[in-house]
Amino acid sequence: MRSNHAKGKPSHSRRHALADTYRRGLYETIFRRRDIRHFRPDPVPDEVLARMLVAAHHAASVGFTQPWDFIIVRDLDRRSKVQTIFAEERARNAGQFIGARRQKFLSLKLEGILEAPLNLIITCEPDRDGLAILGKTSIREVEIYSACLAVGNLWLAARAEGVGVGWVSILRNEDIRQIFAIPEHVIPIAYLCVGYTDDFPAQPLLQSAEWASRIPPRSLIHFESWAQRDDLAAADGRPSLAELVQGPAIWRDLFPDWHLDSSTAEANGSAAASPQHDSHSHGAVPPKP
Amino acid sequence: MRSNHAKGKPSHSRRHALADTYRRGLYETIFRRRDIRHFRPDPVPDEVLARMLVAAHHAASVGFTQPWDFIIVRDLDRRSKVQTIFAEERARNAGQFIGARRQKFLSLKLEGILEAPLNLIITCEPDRDGLAILGKTSIREVEIYSACLAVGNLWLAARAEGVGVGWVSILRNEDIRQIFAIPEHVIPIAYLCVGYTDDFPAQPLLQSAEWASRIPPRSLIHFESWAQRDDLAAADGRPSLAELVQGPAIWRDLFPDWHLDSSTAEANGSAAASPQHDSHSHGAVPPKP
Repeated sequence: MRSNHAKGKPSHSRRHALADTYRRGLYETIFRRRDIRHFRPDPVPDEVLARMLVAAHHAASVGFTQPWDFIIVRDLDRRSKVQTIFAEERARNAGQFIGARRQKFLSLKLEGILEAPLNLIITCEPDRDGLAILGKTSIREVEIYSACLAVGNLWLAARAEGVGVGWVSILRNEDIRQIFAIPEHVIPIAYLCVGYTDDFPAQPLLQSAEWASRIPPRSLIHFESWAQRDDLAAADGRPSLAELVQGPAIWRDLFPDWHLDSSTAEANGSAAASPQHDSHSHGAVPPKP
Repeated sequence: MRSNHAKGKPSHSRRHALADTYRRGLYETIFRRRDIRHFRPDPVPDEVLARMLVAAHHAASVGFTQPWDFIIVRDLDRRSKVQTIFAEERARNAGQFIGARRQKFLSLKLEGILEAPLNLIITCEPDRDGLAILGKTSIREVEIYSACLAVGNLWLAARAEGVGVGWVSILRNEDIRQIFAIPEHVIPIAYLCVGYTDDFPAQPLLQSAEWASRIPPRSLIHFESWAQRDDLAAADGRPSLAELVQGPAIWRDLFPDWHLDSSTAEANGSAAASPQHDSHSHGAVPPKP
């Protein structure tokens, strides 16, 4: 304990940490999660869907408001209507790009509304228990933020269960309200396609399609104020936080068997060396280097 | 395989599921995460903070925009200014409640701005790469939703690492921008207090304080449209989705050693029988029944 203190690791620090395999389980899930657009027709068993929903329901919420609801959609007529809206919005979205970028946009599959065995809408009902909410004053959107946390939990639970989730974000909320008879004061937050998939690719779709690349995390870190990019509190001779987020060192203990190779597709000299893994791994066992 | 099919479990379903210990690791993290307001002064090692930030950076984002930035705040002068705003907003928030509810509000500790070893601001920069964004048409808030997903990932990573996080949601964004010199077009999404804590309580603070209780998840589930509360597709003789989310059955395989006791503090006959665990468990080993 003392020696840990001397090395700058307080003896208290590990006390509430989860066991290494559980900690790794979380990070595996986070790094393997993908926005999925290709689905198999196999139904998602209710037991699996139930765990995903309970995970979503255990998200943080402002004032413990739990402002979310979940609409399970299997009906193909309603989904066809959503698909029609999507097609209109996709054309509109495509019109915002020109030339080769537009061609690339049009080549991308962006949804699996009809193909997935189910769709799932997560909504936010602000002021569900009245207008006074612990934790809500000047920032009026706090319950929307909570609903997003529920989406995040559900997405991670799905990945751990081997279920793909794709967020269809180009829709029109007024139309979604109408199709699903959602009250006017309830906000549709996420329209999700949910189902099994043949592949969770190693890289995000938009990265492998060279639409966008992972921003080097060090470029997103500020200290004390927006303009300050160096950690003035960093100790001499130790790697800075900006170096740590880029490098593989922070993952070595947890992922000794993983690729920590910054020469992969994700990296271009400045990109994050986050844990990489074999895209053909099934994920049911830890991937081999 | 055939027999799995016969039981309604497609043979494909488990192919991409993570190993049971990893899957449990995710759910352990989700169920043990708490909004923390009591902090120890021990510093959070940069290695741990770096893993939390990389986890946040691997959140889903619309069009792979990654619209988030992270401001690490240790400076006590700036934190004192935030504390002042908090105190004003807390008084305003208290004024929204009356009688015993107001007294209870005033008895609750809601932040650890000065007490935590560090504060962390997660922001959203909309239209960072221009006004055309794949996945953004009618719903203009999609990048804000992405930034919330980053908050969620960071919060879960912190919990797995044994680090407490508390979201201070009663602030004023214009003041936060001024204190931290954040550009006008950047939206402060989350102001977080971050540090080790003596206790991750078994129940949310606002639940044990009897401020609010966990909503029974079955009451949040709809089928096909808002008004439809029964799953017409449910098979005869099998528990419905609404029953599954309430009951312990869906957790038995994954948590054979956990309490699945609906007579605990969380339950009142209608509440969710989510996995319970000993509040005195350190979380480093699976809790005993």
